[in-house]
Amino acid sequence: MATRDTPQRILERAVELFNAHGVKAISLNRIAESLDISPGNLHYHFRTKDDVILAIFERIRSDPSQVSEGDCLSPTLTHMRWMFERYSSLVWRYRFFFRELSALTEEIPLVRHRYFENRRERMAALQQFFEKLIDVGVMRRPEPPATVALLVALSWMVSDHWIFYLDADHARLDSELIDTGFDLVMTLFQPYLAVPPASNARTRSRPTSA
Amino acid sequence: MATRDTPQRILERAVELFNAHGVKAISLNRIAESLDISPGNLHYHFRTKDDVILAIFERIRSDPSQVSEGDCLSPTLTHMRWMFERYSSLVWRYRFFFRELSALTEEIPLVRHRYFENRRERMAALQQFFEKLIDVGVMRRPEPPATVALLVALSWMVSDHWIFYLDADHARLDSELIDTGFDLVMTLFQPYLAVPPASNARTRSRPTSA
Repeated sequence: MATRDTPQRILERAVELFNAHGVKAISLNRIAESLDISPGNLHYHFRTKDDVILAIFERIRSDPSQVSEGDCLSPTLTHMRWMFERYSSLVWRYRFFFRELSALTEEIPLVRHRYFENRRERMAALQQFFEKLIDVGVMRRPEPPATVALLVALSWMVSDHWIFYLDADHARLDSELIDTGFDLVMTLFQPYLAVPPASNARTRSRPTSA
Repeated sequence: MATRDTPQRILERAVELFNAHGVKAISLNRIAESLDISPGNLHYHFRTKDDVILAIFERIRSDPSQVSEGDCLSPTLTHMRWMFERYSSLVWRYRFFFRELSALTEEIPLVRHRYFENRRERMAALQQFFEKLIDVGVMRRPEPPATVALLVALSWMVSDHWIFYLDADHARLDSELIDTGFDLVMTLFQPYLAVPPASNARTRSRPTSA
């Protein structure tokens, strides 16, 4: 194996082990052992577990699944469903990070700094997307207009937490589970939609267990 | 000090230390040391850290700040504000538990079981409260009616997470911070209110930073 691949292999294995067992239970030595490399080799690339988590967060941050200004080019509910699905896949792939979000951002100052910096940027893009939905008439402007920012905040909170809130005992993120999550997000926007969502984004209409 | 007070003192000190440093950083020995009791004395009452956390959760579970059927006797927005304030104080007092909620319920099977059991019961009471708000005409029934369950789920998620979402660098939970959290919850119900909330529950009307 070429040395330049080692950091990537370490991060991928770390995500796998953290997802399965939680951050606390996994030591750097355990990651090295599982990859059949020496602890020294791993320490050469990442000095501490915090360094590993920070490097993983940089991957989350730069993942194309994050909301971006490009999303504003498609101000439709179908696209919004796709954005939610994309982001939910990201949360699922790195679920240890979102599951332990508050603790990790509390414990690792650099993760905290970058997480909130990224969130500010992404929420600005998300707010632009909703402003576009209003511009093109898919959504009515709420009264007072500041409600848009509150709806963005709520949808962010739901997007980061719904998988754990549901405590779904699923082995994978299937479309039924995503439908359930999207129902929660759509409940936020439902009152402001110009047309009923059934004809736009949801493939079916069913009550969701809470 | 009488022996029968020791478990209570241990739990109170554990909450203090967990809130300040996180669960991971605090060992049973550290709690014993901080109370100036022997590790053997502490182990006599709590064999493991999981036992301590379970005992703390039992306190959270039986705390009168939790939503109860008694709340249905006062179906007003003012009372809803008070319920939110009550519950937020509970989250603040035991903030380590809510901050690490997903990890703790993942890692400790008995905490997981009791947390979800409690949540089911409390959410049923919360749903009853909203049904009462609809009965007395404070709230309009959403269409489809299943939306009530989704709103209850969303308000639960917001109530458990908003303090950490805001990442407020506050030393205490002051009324300004609670106003900000309540604005988020009220955004969920705003479209269904029969009268504007300003005259009912909020002491002022201001945009909230997201």
